[in-house]
Amino acid sequence: MSVVTIERKVLEKNDALAAQNRKRFQEHGLFVFNLVSSPGSGKTSLLERTIAALNGQVRIGVIEGDVQTDLDAQRVAKYGVPVVQVVTNGACHLEAQLVGDAASQLNLADLDVLVIENVGNLVCPAGFDLGEAVKVVMLSTTEGDDKPLKYPAMFRNASVLIVNKVDLLPYVPCNIEALKRNARHVNPDLLIFETSCTTDAGLPAWCDWVRQQAATVHA
Amino acid sequence: MSVVTIERKVLEKNDALAAQNRKRFQEHGLFVFNLVSSPGSGKTSLLERTIAALNGQVRIGVIEGDVQTDLDAQRVAKYGVPVVQVVTNGACHLEAQLVGDAASQLNLADLDVLVIENVGNLVCPAGFDLGEAVKVVMLSTTEGDDKPLKYPAMFRNASVLIVNKVDLLPYVPCNIEALKRNARHVNPDLLIFETSCTTDAGLPAWCDWVRQQAATVHA
Repeated sequence: MSVVTIERKVLEKNDALAAQNRKRFQEHGLFVFNLVSSPGSGKTSLLERTIAALNGQVRIGVIEGDVQTDLDAQRVAKYGVPVVQVVTNGACHLEAQLVGDAASQLNLADLDVLVIENVGNLVCPAGFDLGEAVKVVMLSTTEGDDKPLKYPAMFRNASVLIVNKVDLLPYVPCNIEALKRNARHVNPDLLIFETSCTTDAGLPAWCDWVRQQAATVHA
Repeated sequence: MSVVTIERKVLEKNDALAAQNRKRFQEHGLFVFNLVSSPGSGKTSLLERTIAALNGQVRIGVIEGDVQTDLDAQRVAKYGVPVVQVVTNGACHLEAQLVGDAASQLNLADLDVLVIENVGNLVCPAGFDLGEAVKVVMLSTTEGDDKPLKYPAMFRNASVLIVNKVDLLPYVPCNIEALKRNARHVNPDLLIFETSCTTDAGLPAWCDWVRQQAATVHA
């Protein structure tokens, strides 16, 4: 029982700090999304393509969460956008305090969009609000069409699902219609994009959506 | 600080229960491995192929860990082996107590090998000993060759690495030599198998190894 109590306290403290982050982001007219998925679904690749496509139109900043290494921050920094790397040293998710501290290292007034790339983990980040406007969950076709049923919390808490690696559909046992049906069974309100960072399929629609969200927040 | 203390207590309690599980497994001459990976790397597919290949030679039992659903247990049960499903209800890893309780529902005296398929998560299960003889970590080629560096704890604590979905190597940006180099950088002692559950590549070598381990424990 004591452990449950502590966990609730951790979540309550996190939620309070997330509310502070959210207020701060809103004051700066920032559109903030929290990008979550398993390791290797393609979060960083999507981010690279999105930054390249929106270059000169939308000012993007990035907070990179990783258990170890700054490999992802190095990849993103090549595109000339401000990046802060958060290394969790083994912890399995980002928390609002880490994100708040990282945001303080960015000049938020100079940004339109802030992307928080979470630790690769389809389970733990689901419960931790970071102050984002929306959670964007990514699932690659190689992971299989049953994953929304097996890891429902993340799909329930997300507003957007990106089904990535659609170029691999001919080679993997994944029925994309079943995948979408399973996702909507868990969360009927999910907005779904189908993308490939190899062929660029679906990326224009996704980038349009990000551009619109940024414009809406500013308005 | 209080959270750190609680976490240490949780791990200490888990380690004590894991030691009890280990003793019990050894008394039954069981070879037990803890199969870990991200969601969708192919743990259940490997298990299906392994059970089919070793049918009549090695008596296998399975403990299936999932956040939600018994989809994996249903898949494995079709092969006629004893399966116990553990649903963690949102928890991101199996713990020794859950495994001990699940093992009590199996007739251990009738088994040679017990496979514990962990929750799909490349982070959290790394720290939780379940009483297994070895941790087997699976990584699919679609996840990228940098993952051993980004999620080192799991690769450090494992004895065996299975690089799965090698049939997809022509279609994905994964350098398998770099992947193996990265894995051995983190853990030079890793035994590595390269497999495909689609083409059956590498499965005979893996199944031979399981057969040998089972024979060694019995001897």
